[in-house]
Amino acid sequence: MPEVVPGPAELRGRLLAIRRSGRSIGLVPTMGALHAGHRALLEAARRQNDTVVASIFVNPLQFNRKEDLETYPRTMSEDLKVCDDCGVDLVFAPTEADLYPVEQLTFVESAALSQHLCGQFRPGHFRGVATVVLKLFNIVQPDRAYFGQKDAQQLAIIRRMVQDLNVPVTIVPIPTVREPDGLAISSRNQLLTLDQRAVAPVLSRALRKAIDVIQNGEQRVAVIREQALAVITPCAQTRVEYFEVVDPELLTPVEQVDGPVLVAAAMWLGPVRLIDNISWPD
Amino acid sequence: MPEVVPGPAELRGRLLAIRRSGRSIGLVPTMGALHAGHRALLEAARRQNDTVVASIFVNPLQFNRKEDLETYPRTMSEDLKVCDDCGVDLVFAPTEADLYPVEQLTFVESAALSQHLCGQFRPGHFRGVATVVLKLFNIVQPDRAYFGQKDAQQLAIIRRMVQDLNVPVTIVPIPTVREPDGLAISSRNQLLTLDQRAVAPVLSRALRKAIDVIQNGEQRVAVIREQALAVITPCAQTRVEYFEVVDPELLTPVEQVDGPVLVAAAMWLGPVRLIDNISWPD
Repeated sequence: MPEVVPGPAELRGRLLAIRRSGRSIGLVPTMGALHAGHRALLEAARRQNDTVVASIFVNPLQFNRKEDLETYPRTMSEDLKVCDDCGVDLVFAPTEADLYPVEQLTFVESAALSQHLCGQFRPGHFRGVATVVLKLFNIVQPDRAYFGQKDAQQLAIIRRMVQDLNVPVTIVPIPTVREPDGLAISSRNQLLTLDQRAVAPVLSRALRKAIDVIQNGEQRVAVIREQALAVITPCAQTRVEYFEVVDPELLTPVEQVDGPVLVAAAMWLGPVRLIDNISWPD
Repeated sequence: MPEVVPGPAELRGRLLAIRRSGRSIGLVPTMGALHAGHRALLEAARRQNDTVVASIFVNPLQFNRKEDLETYPRTMSEDLKVCDDCGVDLVFAPTEADLYPVEQLTFVESAALSQHLCGQFRPGHFRGVATVVLKLFNIVQPDRAYFGQKDAQQLAIIRRMVQDLNVPVTIVPIPTVREPDGLAISSRNQLLTLDQRAVAPVLSRALRKAIDVIQNGEQRVAVIREQALAVITPCAQTRVEYFEVVDPELLTPVEQVDGPVLVAAAMWLGPVRLIDNISWPD
């Protein structure tokens, strides 16, 4: 089993000797409830670094709804097995008091990148994400940090934060891991009923449809959206929160596809909110 | 003369070998126009570190008025002599394009600490300060960084930023350097006419008066303020922007002195804005 280090000071102490000896450090920040998507991050980190640190911390700052925070799955003993499996060296599992010993008064924010896609429906979420990720970067001081492309807006915001604030870390994006039927793997998938689970892949099919339409030469986003949404509309219990074609870095909606784009969507399936996205071109 | 390094990448390269050899690095961030106040910072950094880096960068992000930015004094050759004098090893003098190669979309902000004192009169100023200081910390990765107590709100915001974001740096506060008549040294003092210069020490005398009143047992801030302001009121061309007694960490105004406080003020003298502060107890 990997060693579990709770406090920031202890972790820094452990990593100091590693860094001084010139060995590289890879960080995989997680909120636990580890699944195949996280495994892909951990395995990439294992391949590319001498030392792998996984953090497990359910960050209250990024939950805009209290009940979401309270019901978020906590599966530490299973998570440690996954970390062990993937060759993680150190697991950083701080308490809330470890990371927020006093009221947090300083925040990192990209208002420009947070106003689109998920950000418009989750006020304060990405401010909480950027702030805790920068804290983790400052505690671990990794050479590389790993983030899934499934959370495309999070990835874009963290990449821009690293660039804008000159953070000395390389961000490594890892492709979305999917079930055989195309559904992007997420801890929320377990909340679906059997019926909902059967419908869920429609989200990735609609994104795929949008990409096919673009691939066939259609540039008008209104047309692309209409054809993609037609894939979802007939399905019971679905409600599309957004389905957007945006600039892959700035996340601003485009009306005409004349360069690389990100096609991203959020869909409610009964009480469960699913997100997914595909970049074009690959 | 110290070596001048313009680009962040070059500076990082130069500092990598120093850090790897275990030698300590002290950073003094400045906007140039160096005076005796900066000398005190540089000398402290020289005493406490193996390598001293001074940065000289007039940061557009922290100017809320364009004409302020344009008229800010730029005296690079004199500044380099001061750095040489004080034993600075490396001067980091980036251009605006070096530090902001793309539009800055990510900011560091403490809204809670920015709403008091100077912050309420300079919207966006401390967001610009915190953001550029964090960039400099990330580029230089110093062991220690030096800030003057004269800019008390800046110091409080940076200290809290370092704590809240787990930035691996020790902030060293340096006492305000004063002229023999008590006037806090500032590059703005040079903008005063002879008449105004004769009046200027009234600001530090008023602060001193507030401290004396506190020292004599008065706890009511309304009374303390009244007696301190009476020192300034008779003086020609003065206009007090604020004169506050606040919590030294949170900067919130207090009504009753029953613990440590910061007494801070800003005063216009004709067209020149002066600031000063004293902590109680020392």
